[in-house]
Amino acid sequence: MAYKYRIEVTDVTLRDGMHAVRHQFSVEDARAIASALDSTGVALIEAAHGDGLGGSSVQYGFSKETEADYLQAVCGAVQNAQVVALLLPGIGTVEDLKRAVEYGIRGVRVATHSTEADISAQHIEEGRKLGLDVVGFLMMSHMTDVERLVEEAKKMASYGAHAVYIVDSAGAMLMDEVRRKVSALRNALPDDVQVGFHAHNNLGVSVANSIAAVEEGAYRIDASLGGLGAGAGNTPLEVFVAACEKYGIDTGVSLYPAMDAAEDVVRPRMHRPIITDRTALTLGYAGVYSSFLLHAQRAAEQFSVDVRDVLVELGNRRVVGGQEDMIVDVAYEIAHRQA
Amino acid sequence: MAYKYRIEVTDVTLRDGMHAVRHQFSVEDARAIASALDSTGVALIEAAHGDGLGGSSVQYGFSKETEADYLQAVCGAVQNAQVVALLLPGIGTVEDLKRAVEYGIRGVRVATHSTEADISAQHIEEGRKLGLDVVGFLMMSHMTDVERLVEEAKKMASYGAHAVYIVDSAGAMLMDEVRRKVSALRNALPDDVQVGFHAHNNLGVSVANSIAAVEEGAYRIDASLGGLGAGAGNTPLEVFVAACEKYGIDTGVSLYPAMDAAEDVVRPRMHRPIITDRTALTLGYAGVYSSFLLHAQRAAEQFSVDVRDVLVELGNRRVVGGQEDMIVDVAYEIAHRQA
Repeated sequence: MAYKYRIEVTDVTLRDGMHAVRHQFSVEDARAIASALDSTGVALIEAAHGDGLGGSSVQYGFSKETEADYLQAVCGAVQNAQVVALLLPGIGTVEDLKRAVEYGIRGVRVATHSTEADISAQHIEEGRKLGLDVVGFLMMSHMTDVERLVEEAKKMASYGAHAVYIVDSAGAMLMDEVRRKVSALRNALPDDVQVGFHAHNNLGVSVANSIAAVEEGAYRIDASLGGLGAGAGNTPLEVFVAACEKYGIDTGVSLYPAMDAAEDVVRPRMHRPIITDRTALTLGYAGVYSSFLLHAQRAAEQFSVDVRDVLVELGNRRVVGGQEDMIVDVAYEIAHRQA
Repeated sequence: MAYKYRIEVTDVTLRDGMHAVRHQFSVEDARAIASALDSTGVALIEAAHGDGLGGSSVQYGFSKETEADYLQAVCGAVQNAQVVALLLPGIGTVEDLKRAVEYGIRGVRVATHSTEADISAQHIEEGRKLGLDVVGFLMMSHMTDVERLVEEAKKMASYGAHAVYIVDSAGAMLMDEVRRKVSALRNALPDDVQVGFHAHNNLGVSVANSIAAVEEGAYRIDASLGGLGAGAGNTPLEVFVAACEKYGIDTGVSLYPAMDAAEDVVRPRMHRPIITDRTALTLGYAGVYSSFLLHAQRAAEQFSVDVRDVLVELGNRRVVGGQEDMIVDVAYEIAHRQA
C-alpha cells in the first residue's frame, strides 16, 4: 500500500520499561531485548535506568547493573538501530553524558518538566557539541497550556534540539488535546525541528493518541515492546505498528519481528502483566505523577477519605514534584468538606 | 462539568466475557458481577453464554451452569439495570427467547453477519411482540462497505429494531473507519432508531473507537469490566468511563464503583490477564474470526508457512464462516509463491 505518513520510532522498553521491572533487567536481558529490537528495524533504542543517566541511586532505586554495563551491552547488541539515553538535568550530569558517548550512544533526550525548558540549555548544547542526535523532552505536557508549551518548545529548539517531544508522562491526555498541542508545536517550530510524542496508556488511548499525533505532524513516536513501561505502560510497539500499517503510516518497523520480540523476548521477562489497573487509571484520570501515590494513600488513610478524591484534587491544583506537603492539606480539606 | 454527549452503556462482561473464561463462570460469579455492575449505574447488562441464547452446546462449548440459572441469578441481582440477552438466529430460537423473558430479561440483541440482516427479521419482530428493547447487531462490520452496511441496518430498523449496532467482532477497525460507518448509519436511519457500537481491543483502540463512535452519533456503546471479552477483550468499562468524563461524555456510569467492580470483582475471576498478545493482534490485523485460528495453524504447519500470512490472506479474501475449506488452499498458495 501507499503510505500517507512516514515516521521514526524510538523504543523505550529498556528505559521506561525499566520502571516496570524496578530497574532489575540483567545485562543478558538488555542484550536479548536490544538484539530483538534491532531485528525489527526500529530506528532508535533508549536504554539504561528508568530515570535516565545517573538514575541508579537511593532516591530513584538502584539498577541491577551499572549504567556502563547496560549501555555497552545494548550498543554492542545492535547493528542498525542507534542507541540513545535519557538525561534529566539534576539527576544526570554532563560527565555522565560524556561517559555514555564513550559507551556508544548516538543520541540524548534531555527531559524537563514542561514549564522548565530553561534548565535543558546546557545539556542540549553539550549534546550538540558531542555530535549527538539531541531531543528536548517536555514531561507532564498535559499540565501546561498550548501557548506555554509552544514557548518552552521554542526554547529547546533555540538551544539546538533536533526534535522536541510532547510527553504525556501521566497518561492523562486524550486525542483532542494531543491534536491541539502537537499541531501548535508543528506550526510554531522551524521546519527542520521535528515534533515527537511519548504516550502512556492510563486512559487506554496510547495507540490512538500516537496516531493522532502523527496526523498532526509528529515525526518521532515512542513505543515499547508489549507496552512495558511505568504505570499502565507505554504505547505497545507491535500494536502501534499493526495499527499504523492499516492506517497508512510507515514506521520503518517490521510487524512480525516486533510481535515476536514482544511475545517471546519481553513478555516472559515482565514481573507482572501490563494492564490498566485501578491505580494506573486513577493517576491518568487525575493527571498526577505516580510519585504522589504513596503520599496520597497515607494522607487518605489518615483522614478516612478516598485516595482517588485526593489525587483528583491534586491534579486540579496542578501540583508538581516538590509540593508533596500539599497532599495532607488536600486530604484534610476533603474530609472537612464531607463532614 | 457540562457534558457534550449523553450515551447509554451496555455491559457485556457476563456475555462476551464468558468467552474469556470458556463460559465457566458460576452462578455465584454471575450474581457477584451483576450486583457490582448494578452499583455502577450502567443501563444494560448482557448475560448468559458467549454465543448467546442456546449457545451452550458441543459446538460452542458448554457453560458451567444452565442458561436459566445464569439469567435468573443476574435478573435477581439487579435493581436498576435491565438485563438483556444476545441471540444469534440459528443458535438461539424464538422458544429460547420466550423462556428468557420468563427469567426476567428486558431486551434482546439479534446478531447476524453484517451482510445477513434478513435472517434477523423473525427474531426482531418476536422481540417487539414480547415488549422487549430490541437491538440489531451487525457482526464483523469491518468486512462490509459503508453502502451495504447502511442497507443491512435499514432492514433491521424496518423489522422493528430500536437500535442497530456496528459490531467490530475481530477488533479490526480504526477510528477513521468507525467514523465513516457510524455517521453513515446515523444519517441513514430514522431519528428514533439509535446507533450502537461494539468494539474489541485487538488493535489497542477500543476506547478511542468508542469515543469516535459517540462523536459521530452513536448512542449505545458496549464495554466490559476490565475489558473481559473474547480475544484482546472489549472496551474496558472503567477506562472508557474515565476517558468519557474527561471528554465530556455522560455515560450514566459512576467511575469509582466501575473501577472497584473491575478490580475487586472481575479481575480476581479472570483465567488470564486481558492483553493484546500475538494471536489477538494478528486476528485484529488480519480481520478474521478467531474460529479460523486453529484451522490456519494446522494448514500453516502442513505447508511450513507463517500462520500470520495465512490469516492476513484470509482477511484479504474476506472469508466468512463456512469457508474453512479455503484455508488449506491459501496455505498451499503461499508455500508455492515462496518456493
